[in-house]
Amino acid sequence: MAKFESPNRVVIALGGNALGNTPVEQIKRVREAAPTLLKVIEMGNEIIITHGNGPQVGMIQNAFAVAHGVDPTYPKIDLPECGAMSQGYIGYHLQQAIGVAMHKAYKRWHVATVVTQIEVDPDDPSFQNPTKPIGAFMTEEQAADERAEHPEWTIVEDSGRGYRRVVASPEPKKIVEASSVLNLLDNEFIVIACGGGGVPVVRDYSDKGAYKGVAAVIDKDMAGELLAEDCRADMLVLLTAVDHVAINFGRSDQQDLEDLTSEQAREYADAGQFGKGSMEPKVRAAIRFVESRPGRTCIIGSLERAAEAIAGLSGTRIHL
Amino acid sequence: MAKFESPNRVVIALGGNALGNTPVEQIKRVREAAPTLLKVIEMGNEIIITHGNGPQVGMIQNAFAVAHGVDPTYPKIDLPECGAMSQGYIGYHLQQAIGVAMHKAYKRWHVATVVTQIEVDPDDPSFQNPTKPIGAFMTEEQAADERAEHPEWTIVEDSGRGYRRVVASPEPKKIVEASSVLNLLDNEFIVIACGGGGVPVVRDYSDKGAYKGVAAVIDKDMAGELLAEDCRADMLVLLTAVDHVAINFGRSDQQDLEDLTSEQAREYADAGQFGKGSMEPKVRAAIRFVESRPGRTCIIGSLERAAEAIAGLSGTRIHL
Repeated sequence: MAKFESPNRVVIALGGNALGNTPVEQIKRVREAAPTLLKVIEMGNEIIITHGNGPQVGMIQNAFAVAHGVDPTYPKIDLPECGAMSQGYIGYHLQQAIGVAMHKAYKRWHVATVVTQIEVDPDDPSFQNPTKPIGAFMTEEQAADERAEHPEWTIVEDSGRGYRRVVASPEPKKIVEASSVLNLLDNEFIVIACGGGGVPVVRDYSDKGAYKGVAAVIDKDMAGELLAEDCRADMLVLLTAVDHVAINFGRSDQQDLEDLTSEQAREYADAGQFGKGSMEPKVRAAIRFVESRPGRTCIIGSLERAAEAIAGLSGTRIHL
Repeated sequence: MAKFESPNRVVIALGGNALGNTPVEQIKRVREAAPTLLKVIEMGNEIIITHGNGPQVGMIQNAFAVAHGVDPTYPKIDLPECGAMSQGYIGYHLQQAIGVAMHKAYKRWHVATVVTQIEVDPDDPSFQNPTKPIGAFMTEEQAADERAEHPEWTIVEDSGRGYRRVVASPEPKKIVEASSVLNLLDNEFIVIACGGGGVPVVRDYSDKGAYKGVAAVIDKDMAGELLAEDCRADMLVLLTAVDHVAINFGRSDQQDLEDLTSEQAREYADAGQFGKGSMEPKVRAAIRFVESRPGRTCIIGSLERAAEAIAGLSGTRIHL
C-alpha cells in the first residue's frame, strides 16, 4: 500500500443502521462513535458528517401511519417531511454526542447540523421504476385502500411478506444548501449535512421553477459522494458494518480487499460481486468520487475502525 | 412616533400556531409568509428567523404515543427528540418557502436552518412547578398507567377536560449553537434557528458536564430574545395573530397600544393586563430585549403586517 498522506478534508458517511432503532439506542451509538470522529480531526483533518436514516425515517413514517389509522384526524406525513424530521432528530443527537466527546477531550470546536434539500431530476429514470420499499408491510386490503387514496403511489407485493409502497431512488443532482455547508466548513466547523441522503426536491415548472419535495429516497452514499465533491474533499469514508469490501462474499473463498483501483472496483461491481442494496452502491459512489478528480481516495470500512481505516490500517482503499 | 430608522439586524419570531396543523397547511402558510420576510430584507435588514412549534411538536409526540399504544414495539419519543424533529420539519418548509419567494423575486440569498440546543439551569425554579401542558389529554386510567411507567412525570387534571402531562418552562441561559448562527449571519445568510424555543439541554455533572436533553419547553419568545442578544440584533419582532398589544383586551374599553416604553409595558404586565400564556411572555421578552442595551426596539404585531410593523406603520413598538 502506498505511504499514507494525511488528507485535509474528509466526508464521513455513517450508516443509518449503525444508529440503532430507538432514541435510547441512538444516543448510545452516537456517543460511542463520537470519539472516533474526533480522532479523525486530531489526525489533521476537517470532517463533514453525513448519515443514513433508514430505520429512523421508517420509525417516524410508521408512527404517523399508525396514528392516522387509529384516528384519521392525525395527518399523514409523507416522505420529504419525515426525512426532514429525521435530519433534526439524528443531527441533534450527533451534535450532542460530538459535544460530549469534545468536552471530555477539552476541545472547543463547533458542530452544526444543516437541514439539507437535494435536487433530483424529475425525469430521472428511477421514477419510472420505483424499487425502494418504504413504510410498514400492508395486507392486500390495506394496499387496496392506500392505492385508492393515493393513486400516484406504487405499491408492490414483497416476496410473500405482504405489500409495500416503493419509491424511486434518483441520482442526487445538486445540494441546495451547499453554500451553508461550505461556509461553515471554511470557518472550521464540524458540519453534519445531507442526512438520509438529503430531502429530495424537484423544480416545479408549473410554479416558476420553485423547489418542492418529492417522495423518493436518495442513496446516502451517493449523496455523500456529491457532498464530498461540493466540499472539494480529499477523501470519502463510507462506514458500514464490515471492515472490508469482499469478493466471493459469504463463500469459503471470500477475499477481503484492502486496496483496489476504481477500474478493478468497476469490474467486480459489473460482475455482480457486491450486494445490490448494500455494498454495490457504496462501491459505485467510491468509483465516482475517485474518478472525479486525481488524488481522491475513498475508504470503505467499519465505524468501529474508522480512524484506523483513514490511517490506512483497516478498510478497503479505492483510488485511481 | 419617532421617525423610523432602518435597523440592521432583525430577529423575527413566528408563532407556531401561524404555521397550521398539517404539512399541507404549513407549506401553504410559510409560502404566504415568505414574501413578507423578503420585504424585511429588501428594507435593508439582515434577518434571523425563529419560530414556535406547539402544534407541530404536539402532532409528532401524539403520533408516537398513539403508535406506542397500539403496538408497544414503537418507541416512545420524549420531548427533546420531538422538538429536534420539529426543527427539521419546520426549517425544511421555511427554507423551501423562502427559496420560492427568492426565486420569484430573482434574489439569490442563502437560507440555512441550524438545529439548535439551548442550555437551561437544572435548578430553574420552573422544574419544581411544571405548568406547561404537552401531549394529548388522558383518561384517569391512562394517567395512572403513565405515572406508573414514568414516575418522574408530572400529570395534572386539566379543568375537567381530562389529564395532561405538564413540563417546566425554564429560562433559556445559553444557545449552544450560537457560533453557528453568528457565523452564517456574518456571511449574509438568512438563518433559521432556535425553533420551538430550542431543544432544552442541561449539563449533566454526573457525566463530566456533558449536555443532555431535558423534557421542558422554553418559551419561544424568550428564546428569540436571547437569540437577538447573541446576534447583537437591533430589533426583535414578535409576530402573533393580532396587530397590536392591547390593554383591557376583549372589553368595550379595549385600547390598542402603538408605542410604549419598557417601563410602561412592565407596569401593564405587572397589573395583569396581558394573557398569561400568550401576550404576557411576549411583553416580558420585549422588556428584557429593549433594556439589554440602549437603542434596541421590539415590535409586537401580526405576521400579515410584519413589514409594515418594522417600518413603524403597524404593531406595538416597545423601546427604552
